[in-house]
Amino acid sequence: MKLATFTTGQTAEIGLVRGDRLLSLTRAAPQLAPDMMALIAGWDALEAEVRRLDAAGETHLDLSEARLLAPVPHPRKILAIGLNYADHVAESGLPTPEHQLWFAKLPNTVNGPYDDVQIPLASDKVDYEVELVAVIGRPGRHIAAAAAPQHVFGYCVGNDVSVRDWQIQTPQWVLGKSFDGHGPIGPWITTADEIGDPHRLDIRCLVNGELRQDSNTRHLVFDVWQQIAHLSEAMTLEPGDLLFTGTPGGVGWAMQPQQVLKSGDRVRCEIAELGAIECRMVPEAAPAARRASNAA
Amino acid sequence: MKLATFTTGQTAEIGLVRGDRLLSLTRAAPQLAPDMMALIAGWDALEAEVRRLDAAGETHLDLSEARLLAPVPHPRKILAIGLNYADHVAESGLPTPEHQLWFAKLPNTVNGPYDDVQIPLASDKVDYEVELVAVIGRPGRHIAAAAAPQHVFGYCVGNDVSVRDWQIQTPQWVLGKSFDGHGPIGPWITTADEIGDPHRLDIRCLVNGELRQDSNTRHLVFDVWQQIAHLSEAMTLEPGDLLFTGTPGGVGWAMQPQQVLKSGDRVRCEIAELGAIECRMVPEAAPAARRASNAA
Repeated sequence: MKLATFTTGQTAEIGLVRGDRLLSLTRAAPQLAPDMMALIAGWDALEAEVRRLDAAGETHLDLSEARLLAPVPHPRKILAIGLNYADHVAESGLPTPEHQLWFAKLPNTVNGPYDDVQIPLASDKVDYEVELVAVIGRPGRHIAAAAAPQHVFGYCVGNDVSVRDWQIQTPQWVLGKSFDGHGPIGPWITTADEIGDPHRLDIRCLVNGELRQDSNTRHLVFDVWQQIAHLSEAMTLEPGDLLFTGTPGGVGWAMQPQQVLKSGDRVRCEIAELGAIECRMVPEAAPAARRASNAA
Repeated sequence: MKLATFTTGQTAEIGLVRGDRLLSLTRAAPQLAPDMMALIAGWDALEAEVRRLDAAGETHLDLSEARLLAPVPHPRKILAIGLNYADHVAESGLPTPEHQLWFAKLPNTVNGPYDDVQIPLASDKVDYEVELVAVIGRPGRHIAAAAAPQHVFGYCVGNDVSVRDWQIQTPQWVLGKSFDGHGPIGPWITTADEIGDPHRLDIRCLVNGELRQDSNTRHLVFDVWQQIAHLSEAMTLEPGDLLFTGTPGGVGWAMQPQQVLKSGDRVRCEIAELGAIECRMVPEAAPAARRASNAA
């Protein structure tokens, strides 16, 4: 199943994507779950009803009539692993990590699959990174790699937008990875049962139609199951937590000459079986206007 | 005012600490705000009513009858700055950072002010770090340092518990800083108006009664206002966001010989005018039991 968060106006709804039509779970079964996080957290009890509605075949609107939002609008944790494709390690000039190299993106980065992404006032060194994103379902701590598949609710596409000068200004990457809106995800969550093994998916990023990243998730250095095992040694993984599982070679920062995203650029990230997300780069609004709105 | 989150049984309440008594806002004004996050977010509209209740003088229970919880149980963002007291920079053997060096603690670290803290199965290299924690009130982006005080709701004491071998296993500190329960905060939030300038507060940490850290917030390298200005260049700060503002010298990891916390140790963190938090170190439960509870 493909599960989306969307809106046709003011309020967010959750729904099932069926081809080019949407079944709104919010309309068909208002008591089911108020949002995607609740649907994921309650999935073991709710799945049968969702499958019944899916089988009944009723839909409510064309996909084109809806604005897709980030499928998980308010995740608690977003963790991302660095240097996790061999070709990206090579282009970075850094040694292959012995240990999984994790950093955080903060939840203010969450952005819709087709929403604009800002070139911030603070920097013009903005880069793209297409990534397979695993969405945690059942919570757990000390999850063995063999048990990890049971803890994945599904997968979507992510763009780990990175402000390179801020990323490397100190040894800690988190600020350069956490500008507002710099984590578009979507276009929807494809449930794990539809994907099976996630380590066989073509993954690509195009900027203004030019192919920049082109790989397959089989080239992950640490696979998704190892990632879940390692993280859960330290922390309880919870429903809706997002794992950005690494980006392949081809980032702009490693190109000769170095490339950065410019206002007006279109960045398309696509993964086989999961769909595509695409953003337009826009300049951040002037700070005077923002200061006024803070004061209001 | 001193604002606490507490419980006397199953449900969490919010309240005002008045000496050794608690005024439960949840009982006195059930419609005011469902939790501390809502109280902080709505403060400009709610403050007058809270002050009226405070002035009326009614209280509901002794502080000793309540179990204090983390004052902000579910913050969206927890950011912490490293190497931000001169004596701590010196003991670390690292150069004084030119730029503010931020890392994240993930929200699973939040813990009550007197709750146990685990020595995890994954490591016995656990250390303490007492820190002044600023709680964001009014949201904002591009907040000038001069305007920053208007965006702080209040302050509390924090212990940035750190798993040192995980912290330095890769260049990114986040996993070592984000073990479950490794961010006790409290005992309550003292509102910013009571503190005024936060850069004049004695700050100390004691392990089993032995003084380990003993400084004053006047020794911050980057002060709280500079911190807010810098972070908000990248991201919108939101109500309830927590800023751990740095730890002074005296951490166990820098002692000769190196010290780590052991099961049974009591770690007390205190800051003048804000109170004290204290935890007992306990071993994490065996993984077999945890796996069973995950499956349940």
